[in-house]
Amino acid sequence: MTTGIGTTTAQIVDKHRATLDRALEAIRSREFWTPHPEHPKAYGEEAAKEGKAAFDALRGSRFEIPDQPVSGEWVATEVSPYGIEMDISYPRADEGALDALLPVMRAGLPAWRKAGPEVRAAVCLEILARISERTHEFAHAVMHTSGQAFLMAFQAGGPHAQDRGLEAVAYAYEEQTRTPGRAHWEKPQGKREPLRMEKEFTPVGRGIALLIGCNTFPTWNGFPGFFASLATGNAVLVKPHPRAVLPLALTVRIAREVLAEAGFAADLVALAAEAEGDGIAKNLATRSDIRVIDYTGGSAFGEWLEANARQARVHTEKAGVNTVVIDSTGDYKGMLSNLAFSLSLYSGQMCTTPQNLLIPAAGIDTETGHKSYDEVVADLGAAVGKLLGDDARAAALLGALVNEQVRQRLEAAPKLGEVALASRTVHNPEFPDATVRTPVIVKVDGTKQDEEAVHLEECFGPVSFAVAVGSTEEALELLRHTLLTKGAMTVSAYTTSPEVASRIEEVCFDEPAQLSLNLTGGVYVNQTAAFSDYHGSGGNPAANCALCDGDFVSGRFRVVEVRRMAG
Amino acid sequence: MTTGIGTTTAQIVDKHRATLDRALEAIRSREFWTPHPEHPKAYGEEAAKEGKAAFDALRGSRFEIPDQPVSGEWVATEVSPYGIEMDISYPRADEGALDALLPVMRAGLPAWRKAGPEVRAAVCLEILARISERTHEFAHAVMHTSGQAFLMAFQAGGPHAQDRGLEAVAYAYEEQTRTPGRAHWEKPQGKREPLRMEKEFTPVGRGIALLIGCNTFPTWNGFPGFFASLATGNAVLVKPHPRAVLPLALTVRIAREVLAEAGFAADLVALAAEAEGDGIAKNLATRSDIRVIDYTGGSAFGEWLEANARQARVHTEKAGVNTVVIDSTGDYKGMLSNLAFSLSLYSGQMCTTPQNLLIPAAGIDTETGHKSYDEVVADLGAAVGKLLGDDARAAALLGALVNEQVRQRLEAAPKLGEVALASRTVHNPEFPDATVRTPVIVKVDGTKQDEEAVHLEECFGPVSFAVAVGSTEEALELLRHTLLTKGAMTVSAYTTSPEVASRIEEVCFDEPAQLSLNLTGGVYVNQTAAFSDYHGSGGNPAANCALCDGDFVSGRFRVVEVRRMAG
Repeated sequence: MTTGIGTTTAQIVDKHRATLDRALEAIRSREFWTPHPEHPKAYGEEAAKEGKAAFDALRGSRFEIPDQPVSGEWVATEVSPYGIEMDISYPRADEGALDALLPVMRAGLPAWRKAGPEVRAAVCLEILARISERTHEFAHAVMHTSGQAFLMAFQAGGPHAQDRGLEAVAYAYEEQTRTPGRAHWEKPQGKREPLRMEKEFTPVGRGIALLIGCNTFPTWNGFPGFFASLATGNAVLVKPHPRAVLPLALTVRIAREVLAEAGFAADLVALAAEAEGDGIAKNLATRSDIRVIDYTGGSAFGEWLEANARQARVHTEKAGVNTVVIDSTGDYKGMLSNLAFSLSLYSGQMCTTPQNLLIPAAGIDTETGHKSYDEVVADLGAAVGKLLGDDARAAALLGALVNEQVRQRLEAAPKLGEVALASRTVHNPEFPDATVRTPVIVKVDGTKQDEEAVHLEECFGPVSFAVAVGSTEEALELLRHTLLTKGAMTVSAYTTSPEVASRIEEVCFDEPAQLSLNLTGGVYVNQTAAFSDYHGSGGNPAANCALCDGDFVSGRFRVVEVRRMAG
Repeated sequence: MTTGIGTTTAQIVDKHRATLDRALEAIRSREFWTPHPEHPKAYGEEAAKEGKAAFDALRGSRFEIPDQPVSGEWVATEVSPYGIEMDISYPRADEGALDALLPVMRAGLPAWRKAGPEVRAAVCLEILARISERTHEFAHAVMHTSGQAFLMAFQAGGPHAQDRGLEAVAYAYEEQTRTPGRAHWEKPQGKREPLRMEKEFTPVGRGIALLIGCNTFPTWNGFPGFFASLATGNAVLVKPHPRAVLPLALTVRIAREVLAEAGFAADLVALAAEAEGDGIAKNLATRSDIRVIDYTGGSAFGEWLEANARQARVHTEKAGVNTVVIDSTGDYKGMLSNLAFSLSLYSGQMCTTPQNLLIPAAGIDTETGHKSYDEVVADLGAAVGKLLGDDARAAALLGALVNEQVRQRLEAAPKLGEVALASRTVHNPEFPDATVRTPVIVKVDGTKQDEEAVHLEECFGPVSFAVAVGSTEEALELLRHTLLTKGAMTVSAYTTSPEVASRIEEVCFDEPAQLSLNLTGGVYVNQTAAFSDYHGSGGNPAANCALCDGDFVSGRFRVVEVRRMAG
């Protein structure tokens, strides 16, 4: 598959083949593995300083994308939730620039297709390797666009995102190589000569893939689609969220460098930045050149894409109502501290943060005796209070509110019911302008149908509902109803009863959702590990795909067969 | 995965495991293989007589589906294109019957899920084995609903359809078993104890799959979706075309018998027959219980399904404009006789039959010298005429026109341009009431934009257009335009120039389509072999999926992970 490709490409394959093989092994075994260290210190003595300096050098400047056709206009749309000045300008992709860009992107496709799955995978791994070298720089870029605290931006925006990208490359490679490049076909014809044919099978990308980035996890949610599309032979047009351009703009620039060095067209990857309100995603999404779409964001636009971008294979991660069923526990404190952490991490601004805690009105059994509904809610509030009691520690866990809408939603929450835990303002000494708030917990009566309008809507941000239910039985019915009508990225449950556990599992099988049972230690329901955990199920309304499985990559390419009579 | 399943299921696995393994090998190597003999005599001395008798016994009777919830009303909608009396009544699935049926179908899902991929595959193979034993009966059922001639109905409706079903089971099994059932995950934490988790991964079907059958190839086009959905843990509701119910009704009854014998709910498979015009497919397609749809038929309803059945994963095979590029040939006679056969087989009523033959107006080079456009068209007409000169032989190749619409379209064809080969009526001595017609070839000027309305619409049936193009270059542009705007199930080309061949390949890579090059022997562009050839690409407007690849099965199930802390 590498005919016509020079030595550089062969060297890239040599360099990365072992990592690819190890990743292929990991997705098959689903055991723990990562080639990307989590600890900031693992990146060398100078890395922290250099990464910060690189980030600071970008601020207040024009972010050039050498050689990409652009409009000549520039836009600066990012606002750091930590209050520092960003003022980074990107080439604005207006209608005319896009008209010029798409044919140029398509022009690079034949050579990229011809390179074959192995070379494409190796080029993707080289892009990831160069991103990895600049993890500190990316960490600052993610922190100051998403509002994540530094360590989280480092880990989730760096190694964890890189893992998810590598995982997608591994799936893409495996899926494309299930069919051999050639086959000889010989069909017996009784006493006559057999029919003989030579067949060639070529995985071909669909064309240009559009990545529509999100504000909160630009790399973690962006890399899987980006690398899955590129590895399957597509060009990728990256349309970042106007408030989180930098992490993906860096990605685009690195990808273009690697592609060009390897002898491919840099324009196989391009950036389409816009001013807030330009709406270029909608403009692009129904163009015939756009054949694959990856989207993370609100449900309304996700559903619009699914209904309208019919010339493309559309992958969406939208909104859901994540649910925790609390039936009983053998480790009450462990449960409370685990939940407190989950609600607090990044101010509940993860698509995986629990929203509804379903608690029987009659209370639950624990190893230290029965606890009433009110006690459970109060104890959870206390656990959150304790976790976030110290401002410095709280700020490091909470990060900052990503935008005004989240703050408004948080401030409106007390109107939704009785406040069990009030939100408080946290002072971040390093970034005094950051908007930092602790989560609010609101009590809701889950047995009253008219309160469904409250807890059955996604309330993105640090707002959770302690939903009183008549019984665990009713909790399961509410869970089923939630999954069916709203979907969920995560379901979590606490129970000491194997029978209850098994019934919760059945609900999650019936209306597919990923389930974590009795988490009490250092693993949280909002976190998943690449190569092992699935992110979303793709089987309920929260998302139409899962990260990452065969289905996430299989629609991004087609296998074209060319058959002829054997000589 | 087989806990709780009795010995019967284990026996079914024992019986079929070797066949499954051989099928898995075949889809990986894509070499020739089939366990289903093509020759009618291979099914035993008495099989022909018994199969005919079984079919005749069904005529004029009620087709009972024991134990399936039904409305009490009956419908008889089939009309044999050969003119024999059918009068087979099926339980009519009205709104009330469907309302009652769907919950009953869902009730069987948990046990079917729990059985796991291997047991499900084995049960599917047992269903196929029982269908295979009754191939002669199916042949008559397909013949008298589709209008295919007996031998074709036997082969395409029998062994070839069974091959496609088995292929889908193999893909489904492979896809579901890529993830292990369990994994132990252990993440190092420096000097602290590692984080340890136990994870279980369960492939779960999405719910109820709806199969919307077609008139012309009820089993061949129906089996892939039917078995892919069943093997991935779904229930399957079969909604046959009102004119081709019997082949799928037999399939449903056999499937229900096998499921019940193996200890599963018979209602995992059910029949929804309707009177013409009832429109129950539309009613069913947007119900929340329907999570997978397979459809073969016209583009309008296919596109409606894609846009509206958003709660389901929709697989469509619609209409396309199949194209042959004729640039040059080293075997003029071989080309003509191969094309003549392709145009005649089943009166051009295959979704794979070539419609447009693109021929340079200046003619083509052949091994016997240059041939003008008019000569090529005349010689092709003569080849068709010779092939179909004898009525008995013609009838055995042409079959019968499936319905009035096809006859009307054929009769209207002479208005579309200059007739190069007129259609003639063929007398079928065995079935004098059959409507049998030879194909018409109409000349069209491909350089005139206003004639595009003629040849760029699918004209289903025995109508082909000899499209004069300015050059091979223009033929490639027209091919590209056709693939982009209309799609094609098949592309075929004749050329002696490796450079031209390679440019045609590039077009088929750019706008994914399956390509046959220089077919001159006993392999025809309209035929594909399971385990080796893809049917459609899924990458152009003719179909959104290919038979069969990983993508055809991967959306029919989700993998649900249940994770908990390791003890």
